[in-house]
Amino acid sequence: MTQPSFTLKLPEWINKEIEKNGTFSSDEQKMQFVINCGIQNVKLQTGGPFAAALFNAKTHELIAPGVNVVVASHCSLAHAEMMAIGIAQQKLGSFELGKDTELFTSTAPCAMCLGAIPWSGVGRVVCAARDEDARAIGFDEGAKIDNWIDALTQRGISVTVDFMRTEGKAVLDLYASLGGKIYNGTGEE
Amino acid sequence: MTQPSFTLKLPEWINKEIEKNGTFSSDEQKMQFVINCGIQNVKLQTGGPFAAALFNAKTHELIAPGVNVVVASHCSLAHAEMMAIGIAQQKLGSFELGKDTELFTSTAPCAMCLGAIPWSGVGRVVCAARDEDARAIGFDEGAKIDNWIDALTQRGISVTVDFMRTEGKAVLDLYASLGGKIYNGTGEE
Repeated sequence: MTQPSFTLKLPEWINKEIEKNGTFSSDEQKMQFVINCGIQNVKLQTGGPFAAALFNAKTHELIAPGVNVVVASHCSLAHAEMMAIGIAQQKLGSFELGKDTELFTSTAPCAMCLGAIPWSGVGRVVCAARDEDARAIGFDEGAKIDNWIDALTQRGISVTVDFMRTEGKAVLDLYASLGGKIYNGTGEE
Repeated sequence: MTQPSFTLKLPEWINKEIEKNGTFSSDEQKMQFVINCGIQNVKLQTGGPFAAALFNAKTHELIAPGVNVVVASHCSLAHAEMMAIGIAQQKLGSFELGKDTELFTSTAPCAMCLGAIPWSGVGRVVCAARDEDARAIGFDEGAKIDNWIDALTQRGISVTVDFMRTEGKAVLDLYASLGGKIYNGTGEE
């Protein structure tokens, strides 16, 4: 038997999106890149309406992007934040990204991604759309602890929410308007 | 630029462990396989003291094993449960495993793996050691919701805890006694 393994890939178009956005110097530019990736993922039908990216807070360099590829990769773990974390850690050869690393995400993390954030070693999380915006189009964010922002803060991770929420919500609404697949592990695949 | 991706692999010895355990007909045999994988992972120093496996509840077939390979794979996502889920879903070509799928795990899931369970589509979770047993040797289980068993049950996932807890705890204690690395995303790598 071959050694059991699995591989998760981002869509090929992500490289063009990276090339288009050479430099980042503000939170707005970083989040706009994430939003653009989310829009592309929806328009090109390569996954769900969720995007994320990891940046170095000091150099403002993009470390890794991520988009939701659950359906395309047949993998319920393939949320945007998880893709960015997995790619960044293998790129840097470290299972801890370090406190200078910022995670930008187009929608506040679901229960799984929230649980993954402290283990990733990032120092900051910036979210656009809220959980309720994802729920409004039928996505389930899972059973998150009520005080999730405090829980991250207590672990030394700073959290910014509602940052460009309108733009994050627009990605979700675009997906819904195009009749995108909603999946929540409920056996309705 | 090449298409961003990441690959997670189980250690090669897992195939021998699978061959040794041809058939499974009881929960005890399934959990014993998981415990054996945990012991091997510790003894062969291929990862943390955590193992898991997915079985078909009707045929009792092993779908996919998993062990913690966080350090070896430079990936904080590479917990035992996540490995089993990722491998099983790619093997079956589906992001929802189905309610006939059972997840056996040597220690109750951390916050991330707990969040991943509903998205995976499994119908049953069986845990050996408790969160507090993992914490006793220095591992952090994350900010889990207090009523995590109820939260899974309400989603139609049945949960059995403290099943062969002594054996699950023994894997943790073996790791601690051998001076195994403790990592919690706190920048102390």
